Amino acid sequence: MLPLLSASLRSTSALAQARDPLPSWNEGATKSSIVNFVTRGTSQGGPDFVPVDQRIATFDNDGTLWIEQPMYVQLAFALDRVKVMAPMHPEWKTKQPFAAVLDGDMKELAASGEKALVEIIAVTHAGMTTAEFEKITSEWLATARDHRFKRPYTELVYQPMLELLAYLRANGFKTFIVSGGGIEFMRPWTERIYGVQPDQVVGSSIKTRFEMKDGAPTLFRLPEVNFVDDKTGKPIGINEHIGRRPIVAFGNSDGDLEMLQWTTLGASGPRLGVIVHHTDAVREYAYDRDSHFGRLNVALDAAAVNKWTIVNMKNDWKRIFAFD
Amino acid sequence: MLPLLSASLRSTSALAQARDPLPSWNEGATKSSIVNFVTRGTSQGGPDFVPVDQRIATFDNDGTLWIEQPMYVQLAFALDRVKVMAPMHPEWKTKQPFAAVLDGDMKELAASGEKALVEIIAVTHAGMTTAEFEKITSEWLATARDHRFKRPYTELVYQPMLELLAYLRANGFKTFIVSGGGIEFMRPWTERIYGVQPDQVVGSSIKTRFEMKDGAPTLFRLPEVNFVDDKTGKPIGINEHIGRRPIVAFGNSDGDLEMLQWTTLGASGPRLGVIVHHTDAVREYAYDRDSHFGRLNVALDAAAVNKWTIVNMKNDWKRIFAFD
Repeated sequence: MLPLLSASLRSTSALAQARDPLPSWNEGATKSSIVNFVTRGTSQGGPDFVPVDQRIATFDNDGTLWIEQPMYVQLAFALDRVKVMAPMHPEWKTKQPFAAVLDGDMKELAASGEKALVEIIAVTHAGMTTAEFEKITSEWLATARDHRFKRPYTELVYQPMLELLAYLRANGFKTFIVSGGGIEFMRPWTERIYGVQPDQVVGSSIKTRFEMKDGAPTLFRLPEVNFVDDKTGKPIGINEHIGRRPIVAFGNSDGDLEMLQWTTLGASGPRLGVIVHHTDAVREYAYDRDSHFGRLNVALDAAAVNKWTIVNMKNDWKRIFAFD
Repeated sequence: MLPLLSASLRSTSALAQARDPLPSWNEGATKSSIVNFVTRGTSQGGPDFVPVDQRIATFDNDGTLWIEQPMYVQLAFALDRVKVMAPMHPEWKTKQPFAAVLDGDMKELAASGEKALVEIIAVTHAGMTTAEFEKITSEWLATARDHRFKRPYTELVYQPMLELLAYLRANGFKTFIVSGGGIEFMRPWTERIYGVQPDQVVGSSIKTRFEMKDGAPTLFRLPEVNFVDDKTGKPIGINEHIGRRPIVAFGNSDGDLEMLQWTTLGASGPRLGVIVHHTDAVREYAYDRDSHFGRLNVALDAAAVNKWTIVNMKNDWKRIFAFD
């Protein structure tokens, strides 16, 4: 080979590498399935071309975009709030589930079951205006630290997924978050961290009441569930908020099964379903069928049947977090 | 003046006119209030500059973007559906409110009250999948004609408002529809007619149920109200779907009062509230305080107090419809 040609090939290769929109993804079948899907969908004149207005991508949040172990971040927020609010509620010292929270007795708390969790969410998430709740969550996220990584939770987002969000948007996709988490817990920071604007966030919610107060309009948060954006709630929430079926969806747990079904099954045109499988106990966590948070059991079996792509975090991701 | 300079000024003026983004609006205080608001909000470095991500504009639909007389278009759809479905329901011949609909007895129907209307909406809007409902509404809109104008309803949209939607988008605004009408009744056509994508439509809805049917996922429409996007429901719907307060809102009736309050009151930065006042009985309709559909009473008084802009359709609009 002529030296000049060889040098030219080397620089072309370097250029291609520099331009790789998914640098934190290892080369292999997983990355290829995503890149091939996007390439086919955006190839004008090709058989799988998808018009821009139909390029809808949905992402679960907990366990798909950021960590959900050892507990959901929003649950950590709720437990911290109980501690902050405790001086105003002396009766909590002897009243479950609050006493368990104040004592740090996670076993007792887990034994209290779902009703206890709903009670904790109600007292910590309601009884204030939407503006006040936004201030409380923003301040908490700015100061709270994960115990294992000693980092703000907003740094515990998966770098390969950030690249994926940007890659899809660069290819004309509208990216939506569709999470079981609280819609108003996510919105204050999703634009800054994920580039996803508030109107493209779908989540669980409690009811609100509109009130004029001293001439100013407010929305007051009520201790009453409005919508649970999990399992069958995900396609319902997608339909309610987006009004179109996604053509690609990313999830990591059984709570995402119906979203992946709604996205990929019984529809024409190219479709892609992706499951993020937590397989890396060293760099993050390894869990699936038996996990308390983010259980991946039925959806893992469904992935094999429906040919959904499975991301093996340990093998497919060069790094997990930006700071790795 | 030198001839050359004069000619140059004339052509500049002609150019300015050719570039007027609101050609169907007469010059005057109303048009100026809108143009000034947009100019101030988009003047980088100016005191009222609004970052692009906060440029949220909301529009009511019935009576603000298209006609709502002699009855809401969606009600005309529901009545037509009762007629189409009647052969499968022989009992309707003697059962109110269906008998009144089949006899065309609008007085009897009006006397039946709101409960009757809810019953009609339930039988005509539920009991099918979302895909089936989209097909039914799309086919109806393609064939139904307004009795007075002999036109498809999708041609009975206000040309000045179409220009306004485009003008705002050209200035970086995200335009949303926030309507008391059914969210799924609007979505099949809002992008084509208004340039508003399905995820930017907020409206009333009924509950849906997710089901896998022969391996294909479906959402089945249930005869149960999910959300009423009217009056205090509008700020609640805006918060739920958009997650940010609009800085400009357009309405035409008391159902829009709270949306205009939520948009304009108790918030910093430039805000604009606009009420479309139906004052043109010749080209369209004239109605306000006593109208059965689209009553404008409390919001008309509030407009004066809060300095909301009032569009006088007769005086402010050169033409109402594109075909005028």
